[in-house]
Parts: sequence; structure tokens; C-alpha cells
Amino acid sequence: MGETPRIAIDAMGGDHGIPVMLAGADLARSRRDDLRFLLFGDREQLADGLRAYPGLRAKSQIVHSDKIVAADAKPSQALRNAKGSSMRMAIDAVKAGEASAAVSAGNTGALMAIAKLALRTLPGIDRPALSALLPTFEDTDVVMLDLGANTECDASNLVQFAIMGAAYSRIMFGFPSPRVKLLNIGTEDGKGTSTLRAAADILKGTDTLQMDFQGFTESDKISHGDADVIVTDGFSGNIALKSIEGTARFVAGVLKRSFKSSLRSKIGFLISRPATEMLREHLDPNNHNGAVFLGLNGVVVKSHGGANEVGVANAIEVAARLVEDAILERIGEQTGMIRENHMAQAVK
Amino acid sequence: MGETPRIAIDAMGGDHGIPVMLAGADLARSRRDDLRFLLFGDREQLADGLRAYPGLRAKSQIVHSDKIVAADAKPSQALRNAKGSSMRMAIDAVKAGEASAAVSAGNTGALMAIAKLALRTLPGIDRPALSALLPTFEDTDVVMLDLGANTECDASNLVQFAIMGAAYSRIMFGFPSPRVKLLNIGTEDGKGTSTLRAAADILKGTDTLQMDFQGFTESDKISHGDADVIVTDGFSGNIALKSIEGTARFVAGVLKRSFKSSLRSKIGFLISRPATEMLREHLDPNNHNGAVFLGLNGVVVKSHGGANEVGVANAIEVAARLVEDAILERIGEQTGMIRENHMAQAVK
Repeated sequence: MGETPRIAIDAMGGDHGIPVMLAGADLARSRRDDLRFLLFGDREQLADGLRAYPGLRAKSQIVHSDKIVAADAKPSQALRNAKGSSMRMAIDAVKAGEASAAVSAGNTGALMAIAKLALRTLPGIDRPALSALLPTFEDTDVVMLDLGANTECDASNLVQFAIMGAAYSRIMFGFPSPRVKLLNIGTEDGKGTSTLRAAADILKGTDTLQMDFQGFTESDKISHGDADVIVTDGFSGNIALKSIEGTARFVAGVLKRSFKSSLRSKIGFLISRPATEMLREHLDPNNHNGAVFLGLNGVVVKSHGGANEVGVANAIEVAARLVEDAILERIGEQTGMIRENHMAQAVK
Repeated sequence: MGETPRIAIDAMGGDHGIPVMLAGADLARSRRDDLRFLLFGDREQLADGLRAYPGLRAKSQIVHSDKIVAADAKPSQALRNAKGSSMRMAIDAVKAGEASAAVSAGNTGALMAIAKLALRTLPGIDRPALSALLPTFEDTDVVMLDLGANTECDASNLVQFAIMGAAYSRIMFGFPSPRVKLLNIGTEDGKGTSTLRAAADILKGTDTLQMDFQGFTESDKISHGDADVIVTDGFSGNIALKSIEGTARFVAGVLKRSFKSSLRSKIGFLISRPATEMLREHLDPNNHNGAVFLGLNGVVVKSHGGANEVGVANAIEVAARLVEDAILERIGEQTGMIRENHMAQAVK
């Protein structure tokens, strides 16, 4: 077990800013009494907001920042202007060891660029990856990465993502040996790009990893629940994630339109509300909120810009779990094994 | 206007074989009296099956084949063993000018390999692309390509796909200048791969094309109806398509489970059945059936392996529309323009 989680919160980011970030932090605190918070943002607004949450106030320290990273800033712009912003200061607190993890609902590209520059990657990891939990037909979520941090990836990037995803799955769901699959356009050995085939060969050839590598899967099986971790490059991962989001919204929209199409349908809808609420609950992104930048010297969690307090609380709890279960050390051990295995093979 | 459509049907392919292919052909015939058919497959089974469809029998000619391309054959295997198969013979009939289009519900990879070898690509087209119609919130479907024929594509491949997709959209929906977008992981100019940016530059710089090129789109907007054609490489296209299919099934599955969760929900479901039927109707792949291999010297349409007779009839009608509106000539004219434009730029 690692340290007691002390979470640095960029309170200014996201569509709803301070009110939702404080409400989310207070919800997380009410679930876990051991959490401590550093709140980065406008001192007066934060002090004002905290009046409604005496429990949270007792566990929080405000750090003033009067600068916000713009939601539409390009990563390069954001990097140049980040100094003194609530986002940058939250990440710097992780770097300085004052906080054990940072949570932000701000600009994703900026957060990634700032986090990468400030925290650098772990030994054995060339690039960080954006990782999220997606719902499945089963009781547990599937870990999917990379979801957009790296447009192009080579085979060792994918292998490193597999290691990081497996560590994430072990911590979140307790699987000793998570089932890991590579996203491809077919499941036969010869399918896809040479990069994917090379990554599969490395993962098949390394038996000291704490994962059960099961080859390729296709994107219509992401929600089947027959993989615990799905690994892909950031381009394909982003395409898949947004296709899933868009289709879920599309189906919900068509369903809504259908329900409004006649009086009979409207009545049926009212009666079957518990069922459609269950659907909404299952698909609600707030219940799966908290995308993690894995592979950095520090835990950085992105809360969805539009998340409500439940979503923010979930993102904070993900950060806390990763800290207390020492994900950085776990990833480090496993990348070490890949390196030793490669050296052993080179000696042969 | 082109010729009267004479459709070569691989009657042996697909999950349901002859019964569904004949029922689908008869349904298409009942909608369009001008269609003629060449039916490739087992002579006795076909003659037997046709007894139920005297109308279809009058418009059809049976061509015997006692060989079937296996549903699980690899493309390379299938190519070697294809001679004399119903699939190969249907495509050869197009090549010989005996049929104006071929429709098969068989093995997609094999169909593509056989069609490419037998028919070759059109002048100005380096690679054929698999193209399909996807439902949107609006009244018309969006044309999406490539959906898996080409794992890796360069910028000119993508430009050619844009031309072919626009021609397809013009024919199916009558848009004089379809709105074309490239699938990317962001909409800003600098997003994505260098290949995507190069393709966007070529499409922006060529104003003689019969399309309204509108830059990049993201995969959560595929069903928004704000693009008529979405262009992508076969890897990303396949990832997006299968993510969409998987999510639609997932949402429907969760909804079904929710409706069964209590007596109240069950009653609500029965009452709101017209609404859920409307959803089913809208999402039913049979209503969007008929993926087209664009870019070959001939029209080849893939019907989904599991399609019912409505799906098969739709696939046949797509083939007929493409033939009578002379899609091959339309694509040829436009690729000629790209070549002239490039030469003109080279002279400058």
C-alpha cells in the first residue's frame, strides 16, 4: 500500500468550474474520510464556495491562482501560457510531492502537454497514454488505452500501454492477471498492421508479465466483457471511443424521438421509466468518469469537462485508488521485466 | 442513364444461402420490373427454389456451379480455389459483360480479392474501397468509405475515395455537390496524421470536383447528418463501423435487460412497443444493406452475411442504381479532373 491520498484539484477547469468541482470533492470526501485536498483556483471564490461544505473545508487547503487555461487553447499555446494557472499549479504540486495526484476537468490536450513536460515519463515508458474505463455487459468495466494521446505508435509503445493498462485493471478490479487484447480489424494472426503484429509477438513471448495476453479483438466486442484491457494507438482509440459515444447518443436520440411519436408511446415511456432510467444509469459517462494519463511520474486524472459532481467524485476516487495502490511502482516493475526479457533474448 | 440492370447473384453465399437470396431477388423484382437476373449456384436447388417465385423465374437464368467459397477462407486461399465457385462465376459474368453488376453475401475478404483480380481498378484509381450507407438523424444516409479494404492508405488513395464516395452519394440521394469530410481525431487543421493533412490540402486545392469538401470530422458526428460522405482509411473505417455496430447492439441489449427487470417495465415495454419497433426499424442493418466495392471496372455489392430478404433486395437495388446511373463513368470523369489539376499545378 502507498501513501494516504492528497489530491490536487484544478478547481477552475471544466464546463461548470468551482461549484461542481467542490461538490464532487465533497462527495468523494463523504465516501472516504482519509482524503485530503489542495484546491487550486481563485481564493475568494473557493473560500466562498467552501462555506457550503464545512466537511470538505476541514480537509482542504486553498492555493490561489488567478489564471485559467482556456478550454479551446491549443496544447502548444497552453504550454507557453500555463505558468501560474490552476492546472499547471496542481500538476506542479504533484511534481513537488505536495500532492499525490492531480485531477482536472480542463482542456485535455493542454493537461496532457503540461503533465508530460512537468512530470516526465516513468523509466521504461516512452510515452504516456490516456486511459479510460468503458462499460460492458459484465459487472466490471474494460480499461481502454490509448484514447488520443499518441496519434502514431510503434510496437514497444503498444507493449508499454498493455503493461500500464494491466496494472490499472489489477488495481481497479483486483484481477491478478487481467485479460489483455490488442484492438485490430480482425482476429486472425495476419490481420492489421505490421506494428500490431510485432506488438502481439512481444506480448506473446514474455511470460513474466502480470497479464493474460489473448491476441486481437475487434471494436464491436469492446463492450462484450471478454477482455479486461484493450490496447490501441491513440488514433484508433479516439476513433473507437468517439464512435461509441456518438452511437450511444444517436440510439438514445432515436429512442427519445420514437417515444414521443404517439400518445401510446408516451404512456408506455412513463410506465417503463425505471427501465430507461436503468439504461441511462448504465450509459451515464459520469459513472465511468476519470480518464487517467498513465506512464508519468505522477498520477494525473482527467475528469470529463461536462461531468457532474458524481463524475468528479468518481474521478477523484480513481486518482486515490491509483495512489494508494502505488500504480507507478507496479508499472515500473513490469517494464523492468520487459527490458530483462529483451536482454535475455538478445543474449541467446 | 446507363444500361438496364442485369444482376449476377452469387446465390450460395451468406448465412442463409439460396432461400434468402431468391426471396430477396424476388422482392427486388417486384419493386422494379426492369431487372434481370443471372443466378449462380447449384442448378437443382435453384430450380427447386424458383418454383415459389414464378415472377422471378421468368426474369432469371440459372448458371450451374457446385463450388462455394468457404465463409472462413482467407482471401489468399479463396483466390487460389475460387475457379468454378458461384462467387467467382458471378464476378466473371460482370467482367465478360454478361451481367452489369454482381451481388454476393459471401466471404467479404474473398469477394474483394476475387473482384480486384478479375475486374481490376478503374483508370485513375489505385485501390478499390468498401463503402456503405450508415443511418443519421436526418432523412438521408451518410456514405462512408473505406470500411476495411485497405489497412494503410496514402493521401491520393483518400482523395480517390472522396471522389468515389461523392459519386455514390450523388447517385443514391441526388445531391449535386455532396458535403465530404475526412475522418480525423479533431477538426483543427493541425490534427491527425500527415497523410490526412495532405489529403485535405489536395481536396481543398481542387475546385473542379463535384463535391463540397468541408475538412475534418470526428467519429462521434458520423450520425449527425452534417456530412454526406465520410472518408477514411480501411483500418480506422473498420474500427469506427464495428464500434458503431457493437454499441448499437450493446445499448439495445442493456435496454432489453432493463425492460425485463420488473413487471412494471415489462408492461411499459408492451405498451411502448411501437416506439421500440421504430428504433429497431431505424437501426436494422437490413435497411442500410449493400456495401459497395467502389473503384473497380464493374459494380460489385456485398450483402451482409446475415441479411434477410429485405436486406438482399436493398443490396440488389443499390447495385441496380449504380449501374443505371453509370457510376463507373462518373468516377472516371472526376479522377480525370484530379489528374489534369495536378498537371496544371506542375506546369505553373
